[in-house]
Amino acid sequence: MKVSYRIKPIGIIHCSFKTRDEMTGSKRIENIAEIELYKEYEEGLGDIDGFSHIILVWWMHKSHYRNLKVKPLHFPEELRGVFATRHPDRPNPIGLTVVQLLERKRNILRVKGTDMIDGTPLIDIKPYLESDRKDVGKLGWLTGRNL
Amino acid sequence: MKVSYRIKPIGIIHCSFKTRDEMTGSKRIENIAEIELYKEYEEGLGDIDGFSHIILVWWMHKSHYRNLKVKPLHFPEELRGVFATRHPDRPNPIGLTVVQLLERKRNILRVKGTDMIDGTPLIDIKPYLESDRKDVGKLGWLTGRNL
Repeated sequence: MKVSYRIKPIGIIHCSFKTRDEMTGSKRIENIAEIELYKEYEEGLGDIDGFSHIILVWWMHKSHYRNLKVKPLHFPEELRGVFATRHPDRPNPIGLTVVQLLERKRNILRVKGTDMIDGTPLIDIKPYLESDRKDVGKLGWLTGRNL
Repeated sequence: MKVSYRIKPIGIIHCSFKTRDEMTGSKRIENIAEIELYKEYEEGLGDIDGFSHIILVWWMHKSHYRNLKVKPLHFPEELRGVFATRHPDRPNPIGLTVVQLLERKRNILRVKGTDMIDGTPLIDIKPYLESDRKDVGKLGWLTGRNL
């Protein structure tokens, strides 16, 4: 048997998007969501409100395919290698989103800039650091496309 | 029983760091590593070489504790909420690193800027997009510290 790892949801993301199709660029950037951390993890949020941006790690729970070639959501004209996309149908359906942290109240974070659908399971939260900020050089097949 | 999800390694990261302690800031930024994707996933790398930066998602396989308060590696003087750190001892020990993509040869990627130890299991690769680049405002307890 091949090795595998087990992960568990630590919370749930409440936001206004009910389907992927609603998430066009500008709506996504402005979208405000509530991150509900399960009570038993609340202590881990200590010191978080000092950060202006955080990274949400989440489970793409509506993805049911494990593909290596995919048609990107807004640009379906060509098949792309899945690792050159953020498409949900990937070997390990883990999503990442950098959001602005607006407010923390106990186990609830209010954030801006989410791109997942309502009810998405949360897996991890990390602070966004200087080392996560890179001068984007080449954007490959996405060059000139507004994602 | 609580819900959980299963993830599997898709490759392995070969680099020069044998322990966490070796990873000081400047060494990490310059560090060059080889990402070996298992052959069965190679097709998913199509179109990747157009991107200057990619995000590596990896499993912190040397982490054996699931803590909510941790002492950060280079700043152990105070306990911090784990979600305000990148510490490996977290509920779901998933690591993220943005690296520069130097070269692709078949199922091997040569990258610069890794901060994981040799032999780390790879879970996912994503292209680094404009939306991942944020103007870092507040850095919380890390303000003025060089990570």
